[in-house]
Amino acid sequence: MMTPKKLVVVAPHPDDETLGCGGTIARFADLGAEVSVLVVSGHLPPLYDRDVFETSRKEAKAAFEIMGVANSQFLAIPATLVRDTPVATLNGQIEGFIRSAAPEMVLIPFPDRHVDHRVIFDACVVACRPSHPAAPTAILAYETLSETHWNAPGIEPAFVPELFVDVTRHMTQKKAALASYASQLNHAPSRSIDACMALARFRGSQNGCEYAEAFKVVRIVV
Amino acid sequence: MMTPKKLVVVAPHPDDETLGCGGTIARFADLGAEVSVLVVSGHLPPLYDRDVFETSRKEAKAAFEIMGVANSQFLAIPATLVRDTPVATLNGQIEGFIRSAAPEMVLIPFPDRHVDHRVIFDACVVACRPSHPAAPTAILAYETLSETHWNAPGIEPAFVPELFVDVTRHMTQKKAALASYASQLNHAPSRSIDACMALARFRGSQNGCEYAEAFKVVRIVV
Amino acid sequence: MMTPKKLVVVAPHPDDETLGCGGTIARFADLGAEVSVLVVSGHLPPLYDRDVFETSRKEAKAAFEIMGVANSQFLAIPATLVRDTPVATLNGQIEGFIRSAAPEMVLIPFPDRHVDHRVIFDACVVACRPSHPAAPTAILAYETLSETHWNAPGIEPAFVPELFVDVTRHMTQKKAALASYASQLNHAPSRSIDACMALARFRGSQNGCEYAEAFKVVRIVV
Amino acid sequence: MMTPKKLVVVAPHPDDETLGCGGTIARFADLGAEVSVLVVSGHLPPLYDRDVFETSRKEAKAAFEIMGVANSQFLAIPATLVRDTPVATLNGQIEGFIRSAAPEMVLIPFPDRHVDHRVIFDACVVACRPSHPAAPTAILAYETLSETHWNAPGIEPAFVPELFVDVTRHMTQKKAALASYASQLNHAPSRSIDACMALARFRGSQNGCEYAEAFKVVRIVV
Amino acid sequence: MMTPKKLVVVAPHPDDETLGCGGTIARFADLGAEVSVLVVSGHLPPLYDRDVFETSRKEAKAAFEIMGVANSQFLAIPATLVRDTPVATLNGQIEGFIRSAAPEMVLIPFPDRHVDHRVIFDACVVACRPSHPAAPTAILAYETLSETHWNAPGIEPAFVPELFVDVTRHMTQKKAALASYASQLNHAPSRSIDACMALARFRGSQNGCEYAEAFKVVRIVV
Amino acid sequence: MMTPKKLVVVAPHPDDETLGCGGTIARFADLGAEVSVLVVSGHLPPLYDRDVFETSRKEAKAAFEIMGVANSQFLAIPATLVRDTPVATLNGQIEGFIRSAAPEMVLIPFPDRHVDHRVIFDACVVACRPSHPAAPTAILAYETLSETHWNAPGIEPAFVPELFVDVTRHMTQKKAALASYASQLNHAPSRSIDACMALARFRGSQNGCEYAEAFKVVRIVV
Repeated sequence: MMTPKKLVVVAPHPDDETLGCGGTIARFADLGAEVSVLVVSGHLPPLYDRDVFETSRKEAKAAFEIMGVANSQFLAIPATLVRDTPVATLNGQIEGFIRSAAPEMVLIPFPDRHVDHRVIFDACVVACRPSHPAAPTAILAYETLSETHWNAPGIEPAFVPELFVDVTRHMTQKKAALASYASQLNHAPSRSIDACMALARFRGSQNGCEYAEAFKVVRIVV
Repeated sequence: MMTPKKLVVVAPHPDDETLGCGGTIARFADLGAEVSVLVVSGHLPPLYDRDVFETSRKEAKAAFEIMGVANSQFLAIPATLVRDTPVATLNGQIEGFIRSAAPEMVLIPFPDRHVDHRVIFDACVVACRPSHPAAPTAILAYETLSETHWNAPGIEPAFVPELFVDVTRHMTQKKAALASYASQLNHAPSRSIDACMALARFRGSQNGCEYAEAFKVVRIVV
Repeated sequence: MMTPKKLVVVAPHPDDETLGCGGTIARFADLGAEVSVLVVSGHLPPLYDRDVFETSRKEAKAAFEIMGVANSQFLAIPATLVRDTPVATLNGQIEGFIRSAAPEMVLIPFPDRHVDHRVIFDACVVACRPSHPAAPTAILAYETLSETHWNAPGIEPAFVPELFVDVTRHMTQKKAALASYASQLNHAPSRSIDACMALARFRGSQNGCEYAEAFKVVRIVV
Repeated sequence: MMTPKKLVVVAPHPDDETLGCGGTIARFADLGAEVSVLVVSGHLPPLYDRDVFETSRKEAKAAFEIMGVANSQFLAIPATLVRDTPVATLNGQIEGFIRSAAPEMVLIPFPDRHVDHRVIFDACVVACRPSHPAAPTAILAYETLSETHWNAPGIEPAFVPELFVDVTRHMTQKKAALASYASQLNHAPSRSIDACMALARFRGSQNGCEYAEAFKVVRIVV
Repeated sequence: MMTPKKLVVVAPHPDDETLGCGGTIARFADLGAEVSVLVVSGHLPPLYDRDVFETSRKEAKAAFEIMGVANSQFLAIPATLVRDTPVATLNGQIEGFIRSAAPEMVLIPFPDRHVDHRVIFDACVVACRPSHPAAPTAILAYETLSETHWNAPGIEPAFVPELFVDVTRHMTQKKAALASYASQLNHAPSRSIDACMALARFRGSQNGCEYAEAFKVVRIVV
Repeated sequence: MMTPKKLVVVAPHPDDETLGCGGTIARFADLGAEVSVLVVSGHLPPLYDRDVFETSRKEAKAAFEIMGVANSQFLAIPATLVRDTPVATLNGQIEGFIRSAAPEMVLIPFPDRHVDHRVIFDACVVACRPSHPAAPTAILAYETLSETHWNAPGIEPAFVPELFVDVTRHMTQKKAALASYASQLNHAPSRSIDACMALARFRGSQNGCEYAEAFKVVRIVV
């Protein structure tokens, strides 16, 4: 149950969508869902060289193909500067993308240690306000290895998931998509593919399947 | 999406299932789900006369018929004494009912002001532990007008729902089922049918439909 | 008990004060309180035409008269741009209004889905810091139908109220004041007068009266 | 504002009422409130000798006189065995006391490290359910030096108060009442009179007065 | 820093201590700490045959040896019946063990899905109350794969750890100790050794080391 | 246990470090730790005259000497304007200071009523992300008398500490250091030296010592 016909994934930076819900994207795409990814920010000047952005965009495109993403767009707002975009502008761009894709389900980043994730989380929830007749009926927040689990316990919100997607049969695709991000993922304990696999295994142990991805339910309307 | 083939509802006392999810039962029954209700406790001695129990059981049967409930069972544990049942016994009885009904979805009471609701909530979540291969894949906690909203803010858990079921087309049935409970519902502001309608209207306003029932997601596995 | 001699209500946009505490304003005004309303933001360019602002200001004035508001001021900061006002400036304007009104009680918006509500909530609590000898002794946060209940459960703060004002005898005034806001309230489930009445009924059911308005206590000093 | 005509204080063990709200009792008694104290448990066999109970009862009576308590009752349930009393019996005894005193305001213990405090908190909130027309309109939970601040952070509820009573002019009475409890209070850092004074000073610093007592609002209905 | 000279670990059932903190035990034992384990409950009649208990006790002894545990005791209270032990008795037994071991640090179970874990958590925190001059100065709660992560999000406390122990060099010992529990651990996703390894890897990713065990700080006094 | 060789304290404004952890600084300095203090903001134009800044800097230097601070730096960002500094710049400055001091332990402000405290808390936690091999292994948040306890209960995070440092023998130094801040501390109940002493006494009562300072654990890695 719960397979959407159209699915939108909002990624703060390239790779967040794969880290957080690569298996879910692959599984729903396999089941026939049309998946659209919006990448809001990127590794751009002044913090990064333009080259870094182009590299990560190419890697993203490769990952998207592996997972079966049908459409994608890059807003190309420089990393850490998302909160400097006027609220109405950012909300408008995200809402525009979602409205034109018209999905039932939207996957968004959890508001965590990275300021861009916080700002984009907020903009996404605003864009999905249920007052609009075409609002999506399932909004789920995904975790991003490292950043999400660096929120301060008891001070900032904790990622304590209610919804799990069994991705056991799609871990090969997720792993391959992660491998596409050679410039982003490395051998550091907190960003390695092994750590991603371990997290999926742990999430699986919470609900009786081998590998799972976990989500915090922002709102589901049945 | 999310319509179960088999649905189990656990009610602490007769009428809780209708107050909390009467519209959802009616809607899913209409869509073909086989609905089974387990009523754990009842208005029995020493707190109540046996007559009161029999009356409320008859009312429950009438309400069940209106909502399209296929099966029901009454464990008949006296009200406020549920916590005196040995843990393993209570868990076993609830798990037995759920296992034999084999539902995808289980609706359970939120742990609130009424001690029976707390004990039964816990027993239900234990009974639905995902370690069993036949565990249900959606466990949702419903609110009970009055008791649920008498938890102490900031001290006891608050009912802050993530999932809503649009019951606009099934409010007539819910209202009729509530009306069956002549011995339980009255004109007091906190237990009247009008207050139930108002709550459903408010829950609807949270997600853009006219009337809704609200749930806290304990776990969903997709 | 708890009737203030002077009451200040801070509204992010015109109609928030009526949605959140129209009955309370009317009841305290009836009991002799001098009520002052500060409207911080408005439907102004660049998001709205100036006309929209003027219309809503006229509607507000009509609503204020119905509820018995004695004084009001409009800061006229454009909607969604409140957070761009320098912190010290915004705090100063709000503190200035409160200090000159010298109320015992201040009603402020709950920090919810709307960014202006969050920023104004913060500015109000700063303005009411108890270090000043003339600080108000009761600061209460009110709910705004729709926005307040669109916070993400378990991630953003939930409106779980501790204090209720019985407004049963002032619902006629509240309804009339809401009706003044023809440009703001409509027939959408989340913004209709019917939904407001339902919310008041539900809040009444939490504490044994017919209709109530609910508040989260920020601080009360006796 | 908020001075009750009749005030009930529920104390798990003798001295809790003075530790938690001795200044508030004295202040409201001074203002004409009729104060009634119910002491639920006591230092009785099997954990303590009967003598210990009699001593602490005498100390309590002396403290009550100093603070201006008009009526008191001792249920004399042995310490740590309160949870073994049948729920309906305990609720009934507490509700009976409150109903016959008919107060507007009830002060109850916060559910903390001591199991008796948890059980009595729950029974009190049940006894004050707003469904009864004579239910009190202010239910406030007080802190007990030591036990309250030994709850596990992030796991058990924290005492984070919203309401403060300025007891600057009644600290002499509070100190004298505490001094009556020679068998209970000692020189240990967590149970000394000095520590009580320090806590009152800290609570005062939270709201701009010299000494205060702090409360968590369970419910206030205006 | 933070290596204790004496360490006490309280396990509800045999294997909880290894699942939750086997690597930490091994590391501190290696560093010279004297480790004592108290096993409170066991797989005993009426729920289990006595044989099951004896088997798991033997397995525990083998695991203890691998990890370097110096002392151990089994209270042998039947599983799920811990809460039926009188509060004062259970607290007394646990306090007696801790007092005679005189540790600086105590590791206790997190209060989760299993009722025994909740009751024992509470008894341990009571036993470690800081009012006693010999109270331990570090009380940390560990997670138990499966049970801990089956608490209901937003309703029951979540395990969101603040303290991590790098156990990279002691994973071999932890794995061997887990393997001793042939009767308890199996190939189910939620109880397999692989799932344990994955959890340790995930916890490592939260703080930059390869494998870690995670703890919730109940209290540390420096 | 837990004495660091190098300790960094980040203070939003001069005096916050002494209010929050003056005793801890003095104790660790006595034990041989090299203590470095970074003061981020200051009482500068446009809100304050430059003179006020210079005075408070001199007072800070005197306080630092009393407590045994080895190094200090003043970023001199005007008060209330910290959030207007670009995120990457602020993070970079704080990270630079911490990286060059290379401490095991960092003490940072709790995110409270003062906007600068919130922004600096966030920047500090980002600067201490465990992905860097030289990241500090203990990050603790301290309380600031007044501001910290003016967060709105149930809406904003509460300071509920897990870790306590016994500062009984260093209260003389703390008091003297506080006395250096003649321009900042006064006789108002919320900012007086007496209130500071009372808070330390209360914190001591939570864990059995005479005077303590309290911390919220952001992360400890052992």
